[in-house]
Amino acid sequence: MNEEQEKEKIRDLIATWLRATAEGDLERVLGLVAEDVVFLIPGQSPMRGRDAFAAGLRAALGHFRIEGKPDIQEIRIAGDYAFCWNHLAVTMIPLQGGAAKQRTGHILSIFRKEPDGRWVLFRDANMVTGV
Amino acid sequence: MNEEQEKEKIRDLIATWLRATAEGDLERVLGLVAEDVVFLIPGQSPMRGRDAFAAGLRAALGHFRIEGKPDIQEIRIAGDYAFCWNHLAVTMIPLQGGAAKQRTGHILSIFRKEPDGRWVLFRDANMVTGV
Repeated sequence: MNEEQEKEKIRDLIATWLRATAEGDLERVLGLVAEDVVFLIPGQSPMRGRDAFAAGLRAALGHFRIEGKPDIQEIRIAGDYAFCWNHLAVTMIPLQGGAAKQRTGHILSIFRKEPDGRWVLFRDANMVTGV
Repeated sequence: MNEEQEKEKIRDLIATWLRATAEGDLERVLGLVAEDVVFLIPGQSPMRGRDAFAAGLRAALGHFRIEGKPDIQEIRIAGDYAFCWNHLAVTMIPLQGGAAKQRTGHILSIFRKEPDGRWVLFRDANMVTGV
C-alpha cells in the first residue's frame, strides 16, 4: 500500500470518527482508538487509555449531539506511525434543548498502524476551545 | 545509528533548547527549528515558520529569563520523523524585577531528521498554561 493510500485511510478514519460521534455511535468511535491512547488537553491531566476516553465520551454523548467539521492541514506517514494536523469546528447541540455551543481549534494527532493494517488514534493534542 | 541513539539525540536537543533559552541564546535555539516549523497554541492562530518564531522568542527573551524543566514522557522514532510527549514546568523571571510566573503543561512535538542527520523541531502542540 503506497503513501497516498495510507493517507486516504487516515482521512477515512477521521471522517468515520466524526460521523460516528455525531450519530452517538460510541462503539464505532472506540474501534478507532488504541487501547493505550493518550489525550492531552490544556489545563487538564492527560486522559489515559481507551476506557477513560469511553467514559468521557459516553457522558458527553448523553448530553450533546456533537457535530465536527474537519479542515485537515497535513497528514504525513512515517512507517507504522502517521501524524495529522487538523483544524476542527465543533457544534455541541444540547439533547434537552437550549443554545448550541461552538468550539474551534487545532488538533495534532498521532496514529499507529496495527499489525492488521488498520490505523488507530494513539496520541492526541486537542486544542479545541470555546469560541 | 540505532533507535536508542536517535532517542538520545532528541533528548540532547531538548536539553540544549532549554539551556539555550535560559541563557537567552536565540541563535542556538533557532538552529534546532525547521525553517517551516509550525507551533500550535490553544486559542491562537498557528505560528508558522522560523522567522515568526524568532520574532516571538526575541520579544519574550527581552523581558524574561525563561527556565524550563522537562519531564519527558515518551519519545518514538519513526523513520525520518520522531515524536515526543513532554511535560514542561516553566519559570519566567522578569529581567526588570518582580514576581516570577510559573507555567506548566504538556507538549506534543514532532521532529524531522534533516539530510545531514540532525533533528529539528517540525510541529509543536504547546499546552503549557499559567498555573
